[in-house]
Amino acid sequence: MNFPKITLIGVGMLGGSVGLAARQRGVAGQVTGLVRRAESVGECLAVGAVDAATQDLAEALDGSALVILCTPVGDMADMAARLKPHLAADVVVTDVGSVKASVVRSVEGVLPRFVGSHPLCGSEKVGVAHAHGDLFEGAACAVTPTGQSDAEAVEMVSGFWTALGGKVVSLTAEDHDAIVARTSHLPHVVASALVNAVLARPRTGESMFLGTGFRDTTRLASGSPLMWRDIALTNAEAIARSIDDLQAELEQLKTALGTKDAVALEIFFAEGKSGRDEWLASWEKK
Amino acid sequence: MNFPKITLIGVGMLGGSVGLAARQRGVAGQVTGLVRRAESVGECLAVGAVDAATQDLAEALDGSALVILCTPVGDMADMAARLKPHLAADVVVTDVGSVKASVVRSVEGVLPRFVGSHPLCGSEKVGVAHAHGDLFEGAACAVTPTGQSDAEAVEMVSGFWTALGGKVVSLTAEDHDAIVARTSHLPHVVASALVNAVLARPRTGESMFLGTGFRDTTRLASGSPLMWRDIALTNAEAIARSIDDLQAELEQLKTALGTKDAVALEIFFAEGKSGRDEWLASWEKK
Repeated sequence: MNFPKITLIGVGMLGGSVGLAARQRGVAGQVTGLVRRAESVGECLAVGAVDAATQDLAEALDGSALVILCTPVGDMADMAARLKPHLAADVVVTDVGSVKASVVRSVEGVLPRFVGSHPLCGSEKVGVAHAHGDLFEGAACAVTPTGQSDAEAVEMVSGFWTALGGKVVSLTAEDHDAIVARTSHLPHVVASALVNAVLARPRTGESMFLGTGFRDTTRLASGSPLMWRDIALTNAEAIARSIDDLQAELEQLKTALGTKDAVALEIFFAEGKSGRDEWLASWEKK
Repeated sequence: MNFPKITLIGVGMLGGSVGLAARQRGVAGQVTGLVRRAESVGECLAVGAVDAATQDLAEALDGSALVILCTPVGDMADMAARLKPHLAADVVVTDVGSVKASVVRSVEGVLPRFVGSHPLCGSEKVGVAHAHGDLFEGAACAVTPTGQSDAEAVEMVSGFWTALGGKVVSLTAEDHDAIVARTSHLPHVVASALVNAVLARPRTGESMFLGTGFRDTTRLASGSPLMWRDIALTNAEAIARSIDDLQAELEQLKTALGTKDAVALEIFFAEGKSGRDEWLASWEKK
């Protein structure tokens, strides 16, 4: 698969990595990035994320066969409306947003050749300086077509992620959101809650006792608050349900702690260990 | 500080690391390990964790000036009773257990020259093969003397951890347990609960969507279930309170999700980010 030109709308860590990967793998003849700030032009070029960067939307889109929305999910509906007058009828649009139902709902009506995507390879790092070209290597890339999706557009978007090294998984936007609420949003929410519970009201001498365990368990909490606010707003119900699942586990544990139930406590930790160890072994084999 | 001979009671990841560090730094003339299984003798020697390993308690203790209990916390009271007949009056005993009040309470009555310790540098890895000699480098090492502690013994134990590269923090066993319930036990409990919530009842297709974020947030869940069962049993009340603190954060978040309160959601994630980033910056400087 090869595109004469692709356009990135927003060139941060994720958009920049799309550009780097597409350039390094020869997937696109030209990668152009639309940026908000004049300073970003030089940053994107320095990293090698784009062949050209511009603040001018018409220029960014001119001659492009594939447009990838890499803005926060809350901005995508507005961006779709801004793109519409500049897009030729055959241009395909996709995105990299962490939630899909709300994005597909708001963008598909405006841009009929839009197909939602979500490459699952985020990072808590923010900005194009953290982009890297092998980010999609082996990563699951969700593609979420609807009944209205153009078959050619779906094929193009799937082919694009495959060309970047990703493993395409096709599913509905709703199934996607229910799954990532548990696999991705819940770990993030838990990391933030743990930081807030421990660090918002620290006890004297406590900071000496925080180490690598706390650092790793809370890594995700260092992600962009605005991005995660938008994810939380657009996948609120599914995230709330995933929190309920976690709280059920915590309640069970508190019962076992209250009665000093050695067997129940051992099972709790043993299931945690075997569950993770088995998942990790199969995940690392991929 | 130099000891003609020290004895490790149990030579796993942590005990083995004590031995390696003491040998590499010339802190002990001889390091002897007491092991349960005959096969362990060769393993400990191969790793370089000890100069000698034995299954014979009297032999292990003979001529030792400092004994370090490296068994699970649930076994320490029994072990203290077994040690007692073999110990000369001036031998100092310490431990590496993750909880202190219950250990100090049960061991100090049997062995008057016992002073509790807890080097905060655990790992989810189990076994002497994962031991390494720089484990205590810069690590906080809690030492928890009581009103009955022998001043010389306290000094010897503190000096030992300092000689291994640790930073000694002296506090009461009760303060220690209240602090680690939040800084160490809560992250572990949360990691296990997250694994159980997501992996015990997996949804179809879900495993494709678990990645590095889930891996890192749940790293601690791969620790020894028996060790963590014992920690949970011996610090149950403080851990339950730390879970309450976390649940308060999760409840607040669910309220914000239910009302789609963008400001509250942003504050939740922003506090998580700034709390972690500021802590991490100060921690990495140490």
